[in-house]
Amino acid sequence: MVKKTGGALFSTLNINVSSDTPLYRQLETKLRRLILDGELVAKTRMPATRQLAADLGISRLTVKNVYEQLIAEGFLCAKQGSGTYVEPVQSSELHSGVVARKQRKVSPIAALSPRTVSIGASKATTRLDRVRAFRPGIPALDLFPRRAWLDACSRVLRTSSDDFLGYGPSSGLEDLKQAIAEHVLDHRGIKCSSKQIIITSGAQQAFSLIAITLLEAEDVVWMEDPGHIAIRDSMRLLGINVRSVPIDDEGFSIDDAIRHHPPGSALFTTPSHQHPLGVVMSLQRRLSLLDYASQTGSWIVEDDYDSEFHYTDRALPALQALDNDGRVLYVGSFSKSLFPALRLGYLICPLGLAQSFAAAQTLLSQNVSLLQQKALANFMLDGNFNAHIRKMRVAYRRRRDKLILTLEQHASDLFEQEPCHAGMHLVAWIKASGVSDSEVAECVWATGVDCLPLSIFCDTQRLRPGLILGFACAVDEKIEPYVIRLAEAVRHFLTDQAVS
Amino acid sequence: MVKKTGGALFSTLNINVSSDTPLYRQLETKLRRLILDGELVAKTRMPATRQLAADLGISRLTVKNVYEQLIAEGFLCAKQGSGTYVEPVQSSELHSGVVARKQRKVSPIAALSPRTVSIGASKATTRLDRVRAFRPGIPALDLFPRRAWLDACSRVLRTSSDDFLGYGPSSGLEDLKQAIAEHVLDHRGIKCSSKQIIITSGAQQAFSLIAITLLEAEDVVWMEDPGHIAIRDSMRLLGINVRSVPIDDEGFSIDDAIRHHPPGSALFTTPSHQHPLGVVMSLQRRLSLLDYASQTGSWIVEDDYDSEFHYTDRALPALQALDNDGRVLYVGSFSKSLFPALRLGYLICPLGLAQSFAAAQTLLSQNVSLLQQKALANFMLDGNFNAHIRKMRVAYRRRRDKLILTLEQHASDLFEQEPCHAGMHLVAWIKASGVSDSEVAECVWATGVDCLPLSIFCDTQRLRPGLILGFACAVDEKIEPYVIRLAEAVRHFLTDQAVS
Repeated sequence: MVKKTGGALFSTLNINVSSDTPLYRQLETKLRRLILDGELVAKTRMPATRQLAADLGISRLTVKNVYEQLIAEGFLCAKQGSGTYVEPVQSSELHSGVVARKQRKVSPIAALSPRTVSIGASKATTRLDRVRAFRPGIPALDLFPRRAWLDACSRVLRTSSDDFLGYGPSSGLEDLKQAIAEHVLDHRGIKCSSKQIIITSGAQQAFSLIAITLLEAEDVVWMEDPGHIAIRDSMRLLGINVRSVPIDDEGFSIDDAIRHHPPGSALFTTPSHQHPLGVVMSLQRRLSLLDYASQTGSWIVEDDYDSEFHYTDRALPALQALDNDGRVLYVGSFSKSLFPALRLGYLICPLGLAQSFAAAQTLLSQNVSLLQQKALANFMLDGNFNAHIRKMRVAYRRRRDKLILTLEQHASDLFEQEPCHAGMHLVAWIKASGVSDSEVAECVWATGVDCLPLSIFCDTQRLRPGLILGFACAVDEKIEPYVIRLAEAVRHFLTDQAVS
Repeated sequence: MVKKTGGALFSTLNINVSSDTPLYRQLETKLRRLILDGELVAKTRMPATRQLAADLGISRLTVKNVYEQLIAEGFLCAKQGSGTYVEPVQSSELHSGVVARKQRKVSPIAALSPRTVSIGASKATTRLDRVRAFRPGIPALDLFPRRAWLDACSRVLRTSSDDFLGYGPSSGLEDLKQAIAEHVLDHRGIKCSSKQIIITSGAQQAFSLIAITLLEAEDVVWMEDPGHIAIRDSMRLLGINVRSVPIDDEGFSIDDAIRHHPPGSALFTTPSHQHPLGVVMSLQRRLSLLDYASQTGSWIVEDDYDSEFHYTDRALPALQALDNDGRVLYVGSFSKSLFPALRLGYLICPLGLAQSFAAAQTLLSQNVSLLQQKALANFMLDGNFNAHIRKMRVAYRRRRDKLILTLEQHASDLFEQEPCHAGMHLVAWIKASGVSDSEVAECVWATGVDCLPLSIFCDTQRLRPGLILGFACAVDEKIEPYVIRLAEAVRHFLTDQAVS
């Protein structure tokens, strides 16, 4: 190996005298980088301080200080009467795609189903491009009252005491918890004290919190299938044994679970609006679930992700509101009712568990921004939150109607629609048999329209192919052209498949 | 048991006709509540719809609809020709301090040391009162440039596309990751690509993420003792086996760990400024740690919690910057450099682990607010972040000097001070022997001055009694009067103890 002489290398050092960063720091960082990168190899003689200072147009003292610092750090060494030399550093492996040597832990990636990973990859590439029509789970970001939200945020920053810049209580801000207690009483018939509420950074964090606080690795939990992908994957990441429970026309099929699985330490369900099929759980089924939980001491995790939005009948009360025995852990989120980037959600737990959850929350992620919590509390107390939900209920009903109508007009040969009385998405069953809905979805994505294939929500169940179409985030006037585009893509795919 | 007649009860229903909440919902919620509360007991005959409507001054149709809804929900039942009756609901146990029946899981509270719980309780009561002088770990909230931060936030809300209200990428916003890569290169000599960075909601979340991604229950980890309480407790919550490693004058005593403990899957350390003793790890010790990790394949978790603040020598480069073998997981936070309520921190990991961490982050808590991330990226790119750190370095040095001086003037009989060259707190060793620093701290708190006893940072080590005093959050002109008050409290305590 031919050793470079220092000269050529040092002339490229590019020290910026007008930069905000002090000269010594610029030089020090760059030299260290050259050594760690192996561009300045061991035993290379460094230029004399006077020479380097002249080359770079900086003072000799600066260079001298930097050499001394790097000598102290062991990057250089000074040999009496002979100059300064680079010390050996094995740097060739630096940042070279490191592999964990003791790979005893299952990687989170491995805990995900391959389909989730592939879908995740596809979604990731488009995630920040645009929120595109028919992406499920995204509210109407175009209709969000940014002005009112900004006012709430800026009021907090302008008027709150310094304490609101600090950590705050681990279970959340009392004002916000009280506003949430009011909200769930009004909307879901839930009676709870603010002491039962833990503020989280969204529903997903509430689910991990529940698992880490109440479950152990190897515990069996029962989950709806099809169901929420990220909850299932997060339980598996924590070593929990997930068992699939099918959905019938009354919802979570508890008889099936009892028949086929070991007893569940917890069961996860979406009674208001099954995710993603949309079934509303019957009262009888609700009582059966509560009965099972009471008898066996298992927990019911009620995921009420989009319960604010229902379009025909009044909603049945939440499971939590029917629970006489403290078995229900109710999870709500502001990602659907306001916007995902807010990262605020909540867990309502039996009073006896509140202290444990608050402690676990502190240990896992400290807590949630006090400023954001205060801004949201103000937003709710001022009536802006309720007003927004009322407006969105009207807007989502309109968008749903438009989607149903245009699917009927332009794609009735392709899809059979499931009635949709609640939430932010519908199921369009693909009429053609023997097709892969994942492949269909790939073709739809390629045209700039979003959707999710039903099969990615499935764990062990095999259902007919279908697409999940979110209507909440679809701007009204785009619905028809995008349905036409989607129908064309699907038709094209089916024709291709018939030919090949 | 004497059954109440409905009449008296119903007259108190208090329906508000001018409320925003629809009448049917008010009535429905209140009746449901009465039934669940057991105030309307089973078999009670409900008033006729006409009667109740007249009593409440609302339409009969509204009452009729509510009855029908409650019948559908199973709260009431209609008997042909006889009226409407309350159905049995066991509600006496509702919300009555529920106990988990299958308490197989260790409660998070149990994972905490008793001292932490008691200190936690003391701290909790004062947490939102005021941030008081000498609370360790809190930056100068009084000097935070709220105006500039508000501008950054409001610019994002006013100008960003709707996509910034959505979920965003799980590992964090690219703009912010690039700004962080620049920052750590400049301040800590760390060379990393933005691909190695995972944005978290603070350092604590980064530590849980590391444990859940790379460690398993029963794994042994080595931790500094005294050391960071919440990290130790969070590892125990996750079932990890924490072993204590003492601190000598070069820092983390790796020889002691090798001699006394089984091999560690990970070791947690604070090389820049040992938490809480303040020792700066020597270069030799840094290289020994890296060497051990290279040879055994264990991970080094470098907690660089307040490295932005150093007052004399230039800081040694981070362990991460010396790591040639991809063993270091570097954790940084904006809680100290900006403010805790921001809830933003980051993990820098070897490139090969980035995808696993991003997946785990999605599963555990989705991610961090995109709006906040974008606001911080702007704040950093505009130079506000660097300017703030420079100002705080000056302010903290001034506050440190003032604290050292006034302790010398007013409390030299009580404390021996450890030199303090970095960070936001110092250690004041209590000269009196045989006293409990926790009891001393209790007396100090009672006077409205904050501090933490050194012993709460200890796991198995027993050190001399001491107080940890945070100077960063102490307003300049308050330092002297608060030191006087603190000294009086301690003197008083010692006198009382001598007498008893």
